[in-house]
Order: sequence, then C-alpha cells, then structure tokens
Amino acid sequence: MSTLASQLQQMERHHSVFENEVRKLPLPVCRIFGAEHQPSAVSFTATGQILNSCDAQAVAERFAQTVKASGNAVLRASATVARISGKRVAALFSGGPAAGGHNVLCGLKKMLGANNTLLGVKGGPKGLLQGKLFEITEADAANILNTGGFDFLGTDRTKIKTPEQFDQVRKVCIEHQLDAIVIIGGDDSNTNAALLAEFLYSGIKADGSGVQVIGAPKTIDGDLQVPGLLPISFGFDTATRIYAELTGNILQDTRSSLKYWHFVKLMGRSASHVTLEVALQTKPAVTLISEEVAERKLSLDAVVDMIAQAVISRFRTHGHKHGLVLVPEGLIEFIPEMNALIAELNDVLALHTEGFAATAADARIEFVAGHLGAANATLLRKLPAYVVDMLLAERDSHGNLQVSLIPTEQLLIDLTRDRLKAIAPDVPFGSQHHFFGYEGRCGAPTLFDAAYTFNLGLTAGALILAGKTGYMASISGLENGGEPLAIPLTGLINIERRHGKDEYVIEKALVRTSQPAMQYFVSRREAWAADDVFASPGPRQLWGPAAHQMPMTVALNEGAASLLFKIGA
Amino acid sequence: MSTLASQLQQMERHHSVFENEVRKLPLPVCRIFGAEHQPSAVSFTATGQILNSCDAQAVAERFAQTVKASGNAVLRASATVARISGKRVAALFSGGPAAGGHNVLCGLKKMLGANNTLLGVKGGPKGLLQGKLFEITEADAANILNTGGFDFLGTDRTKIKTPEQFDQVRKVCIEHQLDAIVIIGGDDSNTNAALLAEFLYSGIKADGSGVQVIGAPKTIDGDLQVPGLLPISFGFDTATRIYAELTGNILQDTRSSLKYWHFVKLMGRSASHVTLEVALQTKPAVTLISEEVAERKLSLDAVVDMIAQAVISRFRTHGHKHGLVLVPEGLIEFIPEMNALIAELNDVLALHTEGFAATAADARIEFVAGHLGAANATLLRKLPAYVVDMLLAERDSHGNLQVSLIPTEQLLIDLTRDRLKAIAPDVPFGSQHHFFGYEGRCGAPTLFDAAYTFNLGLTAGALILAGKTGYMASISGLENGGEPLAIPLTGLINIERRHGKDEYVIEKALVRTSQPAMQYFVSRREAWAADDVFASPGPRQLWGPAAHQMPMTVALNEGAASLLFKIGA
Repeated sequence: MSTLASQLQQMERHHSVFENEVRKLPLPVCRIFGAEHQPSAVSFTATGQILNSCDAQAVAERFAQTVKASGNAVLRASATVARISGKRVAALFSGGPAAGGHNVLCGLKKMLGANNTLLGVKGGPKGLLQGKLFEITEADAANILNTGGFDFLGTDRTKIKTPEQFDQVRKVCIEHQLDAIVIIGGDDSNTNAALLAEFLYSGIKADGSGVQVIGAPKTIDGDLQVPGLLPISFGFDTATRIYAELTGNILQDTRSSLKYWHFVKLMGRSASHVTLEVALQTKPAVTLISEEVAERKLSLDAVVDMIAQAVISRFRTHGHKHGLVLVPEGLIEFIPEMNALIAELNDVLALHTEGFAATAADARIEFVAGHLGAANATLLRKLPAYVVDMLLAERDSHGNLQVSLIPTEQLLIDLTRDRLKAIAPDVPFGSQHHFFGYEGRCGAPTLFDAAYTFNLGLTAGALILAGKTGYMASISGLENGGEPLAIPLTGLINIERRHGKDEYVIEKALVRTSQPAMQYFVSRREAWAADDVFASPGPRQLWGPAAHQMPMTVALNEGAASLLFKIGA
Repeated sequence: MSTLASQLQQMERHHSVFENEVRKLPLPVCRIFGAEHQPSAVSFTATGQILNSCDAQAVAERFAQTVKASGNAVLRASATVARISGKRVAALFSGGPAAGGHNVLCGLKKMLGANNTLLGVKGGPKGLLQGKLFEITEADAANILNTGGFDFLGTDRTKIKTPEQFDQVRKVCIEHQLDAIVIIGGDDSNTNAALLAEFLYSGIKADGSGVQVIGAPKTIDGDLQVPGLLPISFGFDTATRIYAELTGNILQDTRSSLKYWHFVKLMGRSASHVTLEVALQTKPAVTLISEEVAERKLSLDAVVDMIAQAVISRFRTHGHKHGLVLVPEGLIEFIPEMNALIAELNDVLALHTEGFAATAADARIEFVAGHLGAANATLLRKLPAYVVDMLLAERDSHGNLQVSLIPTEQLLIDLTRDRLKAIAPDVPFGSQHHFFGYEGRCGAPTLFDAAYTFNLGLTAGALILAGKTGYMASISGLENGGEPLAIPLTGLINIERRHGKDEYVIEKALVRTSQPAMQYFVSRREAWAADDVFASPGPRQLWGPAAHQMPMTVALNEGAASLLFKIGA
C-alpha cells in the first residue's frame, strides 16, 4: 500500500486530521478549579439567591425532600477542598444530541479523578432502565475530548415517569452500586432529573442513604436558560454557528448569482433563539421570529405581506432580484389564526374520525370545513393542497399535528409568489429553499461549547463530590473567568396542563421582545432589509484569532462588553 | 448605544470576526514569484509537452491563430523579469460561484501592480457585453482577500457565441481600451475563452494588435482537471470540505440518535468527484458513484439492492438501525435503463406534444407508455408518481429533462423501503434526506483554495504581462513549492455533437474507475459498510495545525506522499 493510502486508512474511526489535532487542544477552566490537568474539588455555598417558581408551594410538596434540603437556594463554588474517593457515578445523554456532550463526560472524569469511578450509560434513559452501564476510562475520555455528537454513548427520548420505571432505576442503582447519576439533557430531561433526585433522595443504599442526581443543561434550541444564572444551554453556540456559516454562504451566493430569494428554515419548534442568533450573525433581508408574530397577532397574510414588501422594495430601489428569508421551524403554530385552525382541526378530526375515514380523498377538505367555524374553514380552503394534506394527516400519539412535517418554507414561497403576482407582477421572484437541522446537532463543538461543557462536567463532578443532589450545573461570569454555579432544579419547575393533566415541567425559555438581543435586532432589521449589508461569519475556528466568541444573543442579553468569553483567564 | 451593540453594527457588510481576521492571513506564493507582497513578474517557456486532443486537426483550423502561436505547447514560469506597465485588464466570473474567485482577482491585482490597471466586470459575460466595467482598487482587493463567493462582481451563465455577441465584445474592448480579458470559469467558460482568444487575436486595437484572453479553472464539481498539469479546479476543495463537514456531523448524529438512515445527495450533475471526495473524507456505509454505475451497467433495482443489503447486514450483524448513503446529484442519468427511458421519453414527448397535452392528467402515464418500448414502459409504470411527474414535466429550452428536479434521494429511500418490506420485513428502516448544494459554492475558501487561487491570479497576471493569449493558468507541483503553468486551451478542446450540431468543447473530466482515488475507495468500502468506521472531518481551519490539507482525491490521483500541500515552502 502507498504511504498515502496507509495514512488515509489510519484516519478511519474519528481520526481525521481535525479530530486528531482537536483532541490536543487545551481548554480553559474556571479560576477556582485551578489547572485543566489537575482541577481541584470545590465546596459550594449559598449565593443568597432563592429560586421560587409561581407554583412553589405545590412543588415543595411534590419534591419535599429535595426542596427541604436545598431551600431552592442557588449555590456557588466557594473554596477548594480535598477530593473524596470511592464514588460511583453514572452519566447519560437524554434527548437530541448537541455539541459538547462528550466534554461534559471529560470534565466529570477529570473531576472524579482516579479514585472515583465514572460509568457511561449506553442509549440514554432507556439504557439506564436496561442497566447498560460500563466504565469510562481515561483513554476513552482522551479519545472523545472536543469531539461532537453523543455517539460515544448514544441517546434516546424515553421519559422515566411510571412507578415501575422508577423502581427499575432503583434496582439498577443498587446493582451497579451507584452513588450518583448525571443526566445531560434539555428541559424535559432536567425535569426528569428533578423527579429522580426526589425519588432517589434516601433509602436506596443499604445504609439508608440515597443516590444523588445532577443535571447538565443541553439543547441546541437555547430554550433552557435562566437570566443571570444559566447564560445558555450547551450545543446552542455550535448549532447556530453552523447554521450561520451555511446561511452566510448562501447570502454570498444570492449576491453572486443575482437571481434567487433563498428561504432558510432553521430547527427549533418552540423558541426562535436559534433563528435570532443566526440573524444577528448574518443580517439577512427578512427574519421571522415566532414569538413576535404571536405577540403582534400577525395573520399568515400579514407575514407574507412583510416578505413581499421586502422583495418589491429591494427590486424597485436597487434592482435586486435576490435576498434571504430566515424562518423558524415552529412558525406556523405561532401564527394565531393557524394555531386556532390547528386546534379546531385536532378537535374535529378526533370527533369525526370515522366520518373522515369514510370520506373520499377529494371530498375530505369540504367534509372537514363543514365542521369548522367560518374563519377556520375559509383559511383551510385558502391553503395549498400540500399543506392541507399535512394538516389533515395522521396525528401523533398525543393527537397533535406533526408540525415539523409542514413545509413552512415552501408555503411562504408559494404565498409570496401569489402575492407578488397580484400586486407587483413585474417584480421577478425566483426561489430556493433549505432546512438546516440535523447538520447542526453533532458538529464539533466551538471553543465556547468545548470550554463551557468541560467546565459543566467539572462542576457536576464537584457537586457530586460535595454530596449535592437535585441541582443543575451552570457556569456564569463568562466574561470574568467563569463561575461554577448550582441551580436547584425545583426552583425552575412549574405546573403545566398537558393533555388534560397537571404536569411538573421546566418551562421553555422563549424569545421575549423586551430582551436586549431582540431589541438590537429590531433596531437594525430595516437597514438589513433595505440593501445587502450581510456578513458571512465563516467556519468555526478552534485555533487562531477568530476562535474566542460567545453567542451574540447571550452577550447582548447578559450585558457583556464584547463577544469575547473569558473562562479561566 | 451600548459598546457591544456598536461593535455588532460594525460587523455588517462582511466584517464578522472571521472575515476581519481572515483578510490578514498571509498566503504562500510559488517560489518563483518570491514574496506575497511583492511578487515578481515571470517569463514562460515551453515544457516540451504538447497537448493535442483527438480532434486536433479540426481545432487547428477553427483556432488557426492561437494554435499557430502556441503550438499547443504547455508553458512553465521560467525566470523573473521586469514588470511592464500600462496594460488594461478586465476580469469576470462566469457560471456558478466557487470559493477562491476573489483571490484570483487579488492575485491578478498584485501581479499587475500599480502601473497596470485591473478592471472588474459586473455580472459575468452578460456584463461584459453590456460594458459594465469599473476599476478594482488596492482597497477593493484588500477587502475581498480570502473571502468566499463571487459577490464582489456577480456572475451569470451567458454564453458568448453569436457573431453579434463577438462584435459587441470587440466594441467593449475598444471602448475600454482593454489589452486583456481574464475569464474565471468552468469547462464551458474556458471553451468560450478559447473562442474569444481566437476572435480577439489580432486587428482589435488601432495598431492592429489583439486583446489577450486568459482562463482560470473554476468549478466546485472538480470536472475540470488535467492529470499532471491541472490538479484540480478551484472551489472543489472548499465545497467538498463543507459537504464533508456536514456529512460527518450527520454521521455522528446517526450513531448518537441510533434510529435513522440518512440519504445525502451532493451537488454535481455530471461527475462524481464531489461524492468520491466526501466519501474519502467521511467513510459512510454506502456511496454511489455515477460513473461506476454506468460502467457496470447497474439497473435501478441493482442499485437499490446494494443499499438494502447494507441495511440488512448492519442490522443483523450489529443491531444497527442507522447508516448513511451518499448519492451524486446526477445518478439517475448514469443508470443505463433510466438513461434509456429518459432518452425515449424526450423523443416521445417531442413527437406527441399535442396528444400528450390533450390527455387528462391521470391518463398521461398510459398515453406515454403506449408510445414507449416494452422495457421502458414497464420501468415507467414501476416508478413512484412523484418521479413520473418529473419525468413527464416540461423540458428545458433544449428539450431535455431537468434532472436536478428529480428527488433521487427520496426515490432511493422509497425503493429501499419497498425492497426491505419484501425481503426483510423485520429490519427497521427510518430515514431522513438532505441535499447539499448551494451551501458549498460560496463558503470562505479553505487555505488550499485561498493559496491556489491567489497563485492562479498571479499566474494569469504574469501570462498577460508576458503577452500570452489562449492559455489557462494552472499551478502544479503542489507538494514541491508550486509551479505556475500555462495550458493551451486549444489543446483541451474536442468536438462534441450537441443538439444535432458539432460544437467545440472542453470535455468534462469524469471519475474513472482506474484512478488511484477510486481504487482506494473500492478497497475500503466493504469495511465502511460493515460497521461504523466513519470520521467527522470538522470545520475547515484557517489557522493552526489542521489548516494545511489538499483534497484526498487530488493527493491520491497525483501520487502525493501526504495530504500536506506545500506552496512556496
């Protein structure tokens, strides 16, 4: 075999040039931890801040042991302490993957050190129920450091909620002699962590003690954040930087090829943080923010009109036949009239299942319209066939519409084209559409996500060594060396009515139009629409002068002085 | 305004952190040019290599003046010379954008220096006909250095072929007192450059002299390459590295989420170089190479069977429910039976236009099938409706099917699902599909493309200063400091029958199964299919230890000892 062929073969199994080099990249750690290679264990003390949700009393009853112990007080790392030994800690990924998960494991491993044991759980919460645990070695950690994805362990979306499941977790804890579990996941997974922390609080081990549970805040959607305490969930920076690079590339293409409007849909069904961040990074002509559409009660027509006016004005003023529209995945549900239509459709289809099934395919729209209120019937008849098909398609297991199947970007293109034909037939409108989703979940972490998650892992490990349970690890003070925090999970929990039942949930943090990031966007968007002023933020850099950036929405909302994050420095 | 808000506003118009930093990045230049900031002009001498296509005699007649002058001899830069002054040179982009075009302009500007004039042509060949020329300043060049896209000038796809168009170019040359034109484009654009070089060879200026024409080899498809002389067209490295990053991210997602087969279609209608390069970078379970499918005369069924067997075997051996299939955009046309069907369909639809139009929508398949041969009729009836719709859709202006509209990735998913249901109903098969195209054309150039194109610009400039015309600039010796070459365009030209007429064309370089890159791929693909051995090559780095790489297909095909490129070193 040639020299080159043998070099190439050695790059299999995560040994590309990049992966080999990025494993050697040093990571900064929060000042209190000391050095990356030998971080100190730390003690935690109350910051004085108490978190109480509006359902605090009910939460204090449901989570009696953990609330009693924590008092819902936020903790900060306060002093270095000697490292205890002999703990057995299991860690698992839960929900969709996000960049940096591997570094949480690496940080955990580093903090636990050689005299405690870190176990990995294969395949998420389901794997925990099945007892799929194995020991994570130093070599494993070195191999996954700074790599993307959750592929070292795998993940799944099982929710641990039935009494039988809780009992099964208890059995696994006993069988594997666990002292603690770290759950790396989003809002639902951290709610699960709170439930588990309470269930496992005491009486699990032979001596009557419990098993600690610590959460780590993950989600590319960025909807798990607490102002001043949790600047952002991990994975958001990497995903948005990937989407921003691609969007920036396409913006340069629009102005190079001079003939298309590109409609780019971005992952994120609930919150528009991802779309807002990508807009701030790239400055496209039009950006739709779901929460603002809902707040301003915009109709579908009004949204289409905004786009059409931008197309017309750019053509009339500059002769531009090109532009770019950013669309959040969940937009449809935030348009009040569409939301009302979908809600009534859910009811009608549930009530008239048999009649609907007995109706011929081409008569189904009228069958359903006949059962809708007048406004909803009119709206339904106005929508293109491929959207109506989706609106009438099979519901998910909760009886809900599968919104992600609606091609919102195509709908907006078609409605904009129709509108232009009606009001400005001389304005050319060629279009292309894109959906960026899976591309951003498992990319190699940015330096921000890599450092943030390594420190989240150190913090989670330190909380376990300090005997804490029911907390979420966080790093604040991103401009000032980084401060490890512990947020009491019960302080984030509210009661929400889901499918006719009260459920304890950590509420998703949506974009608020009063936030600095949103206000900055609003102050600039007219200039961005009027003519090309876009930027193309390029591929994420792990080395060199362009590597140290935090997300723009985070920097604005946290009142940072610049985009530079400074952990450890 | 806050400090941060004002910083963010300063990032508009291509001033992201990355863009600001990358403009300062030093670029290596071929040894003979000396220093980047003051490259020397050079003379060119014959290498001894003569290029003669199989239609050399007809070409020598059609391109009499240029062939007589060049003798189709390949030239190399041989010695530094004093820089002449007073030349006026116009440069334009032609065809789809590709990363590095801006650096060709920067290299040109640098080589021409302060005493010659570089003009930019806005909007491609069409802009040349319209005389949309303006002077490119040093500040312009500094502003676009190392940035992606063609947005500084814009581009279009106009072919200059009628006598009126040639006359119009002559007028523009005279009006703007041009001494030379640089055409930055692909195979068709460089054919155009050859035609223009011949037309403008003499008798244009008052003294009877001509206007020089030099080509620069661009295309992300990589199908403009000449073994040993032109290692690759620019833009290929950047586009494939972008697609490889995204494919690598998705591969990590498949193994993280553990539930989907992802089908990824990659841009490139004719050649599968892009797909082969991305396969070598990422090592997915299944990769289809159009040229191999054609050579092995595989049926659609056979292609689907290859995929289904991989799905089955990975599930049976490892329990894997996940994997990834890479599909070149042009695959359909390379499957012999599909190609035959499309060809007969083109004829039938052209012959029976009126009858087809008069037939009701739901009877059209049978109408067309009735005019097809038996095998083609059977195949047509077997295809899903959304593919048949496309096959029967309106032809382009040449009467050809618009292959890019056929959702090949969806077709393969549906046929694979059907096959699995028939032969292995217990094997789970969830799927997702992607198409990566526009995302890769305008990204920031890799260090390879940035350096390669800057040197292509230096070479094109040096050829103009040396009085040459009808050549394409090239850089060979990528491992040995870089050698500027001039390839006589007429040496690449063949006669091809297009739409019933003989046309002079530069033939597209397709993947050949005998090439080292293809042979290496074939030697490894069974191992890649059997279990996950993928790599995730990560975002392109402009700084640090992972920045210096050339494409793997290029390194293999050129017999390089490693992936490191060494221009100037």
